Amino acid sequence: MANQQKTAALEGAAERASRRRRTEVMQLILRALCIGSSIVSLSLMITAKQNKSVRIFGGIHYPVHAKWSFSQSFIFLVGVSVAVAAYSLLQLLIGLSRFFRSSSLISSRNHAWLIFAGDQAFAYALMSAGSAASGVTSLNHTGIKLTPLPNFCKPLQKFCDHVAISIVFNFINCFLLATLAIHHVIWLSQH
Amino acid sequence: MANQQKTAALEGAAERASRRRRTEVMQLILRALCIGSSIVSLSLMITAKQNKSVRIFGGIHYPVHAKWSFSQSFIFLVGVSVAVAAYSLLQLLIGLSRFFRSSSLISSRNHAWLIFAGDQAFAYALMSAGSAASGVTSLNHTGIKLTPLPNFCKPLQKFCDHVAISIVFNFINCFLLATLAIHHVIWLSQH
Repeated sequence: MANQQKTAALEGAAERASRRRRTEVMQLILRALCIGSSIVSLSLMITAKQNKSVRIFGGIHYPVHAKWSFSQSFIFLVGVSVAVAAYSLLQLLIGLSRFFRSSSLISSRNHAWLIFAGDQAFAYALMSAGSAASGVTSLNHTGIKLTPLPNFCKPLQKFCDHVAISIVFNFINCFLLATLAIHHVIWLSQH
Repeated sequence: MANQQKTAALEGAAERASRRRRTEVMQLILRALCIGSSIVSLSLMITAKQNKSVRIFGGIHYPVHAKWSFSQSFIFLVGVSVAVAAYSLLQLLIGLSRFFRSSSLISSRNHAWLIFAGDQAFAYALMSAGSAASGVTSLNHTGIKLTPLPNFCKPLQKFCDHVAISIVFNFINCFLLATLAIHHVIWLSQH
């Protein structure tokens, strides 16, 4: 009888441990995805430039030159992407080293609070950068109603596509970090 | 001896209860501040319009007409402010009714998760709206480098001031909701 209880307790502990490992693997995968989408977002944005000659008023050729660094919002997005890539890489390395030493990814409640704060702050920064950049591109697409601006994106298709996909990956990244933050809230609520 | 222990236990319970009440009062004040800053942000934005005649090229008078509803980002900010005001009012009313019935503000873990999710989602929405609007106003201030746009904010001082202060209150609101979200994480980590 005592043996049976012992076996059941051991099985329970083993199951809990394997569930914990599965969660931790998922967290590490989420971190790796964060790094990936930061790099995609970053590289698409810094390659967003295009020169083209546009014909206006029927005949006159007007050179249009678009580059990501012309807009403060795009510079902000690049800055945030770099910061998030660096932060995620650091967290991934720390996580992997803890994982392969078979210790728990999160050492203490303070550690969990720290990672939660970091994830939360960077998720807000990504949301901010993505929205600021979207505000500017939506102007590029439609022109500003205040003044009769031409539609930039007709001649500058390649530039606008780069920017748009970069912003999409930026929002994916924000979603990933928000998911990680919720993971840590769950951890905090259970320990 | 038994009496002393009993008194000490009672005092401890009373102290815990009064600490809980203090935290709850603070949460209700934060909710009220959220409603306040939503309304300030909203009313400043929807009163942001200005007509002016600007002199260009030395002599020609050119009428400039600015209104908040010309920009998608400003419309988004107004929508988010309305939603946050309604959500905060609802939470404040529920909170006050529970507070005056002397029951705890948060009834269960599920309830805490629900409020945490709401606060978090609206904080992200506010961050997004504020950033999108900031991206557009920073264009208004500096013009777009892609095309030689004039500086809108010189003639349209009143319009730009309204928009800028509205955005500031929007970010204050975001900060308040983020604080409330952290409050609920603390609650979840303790119960």
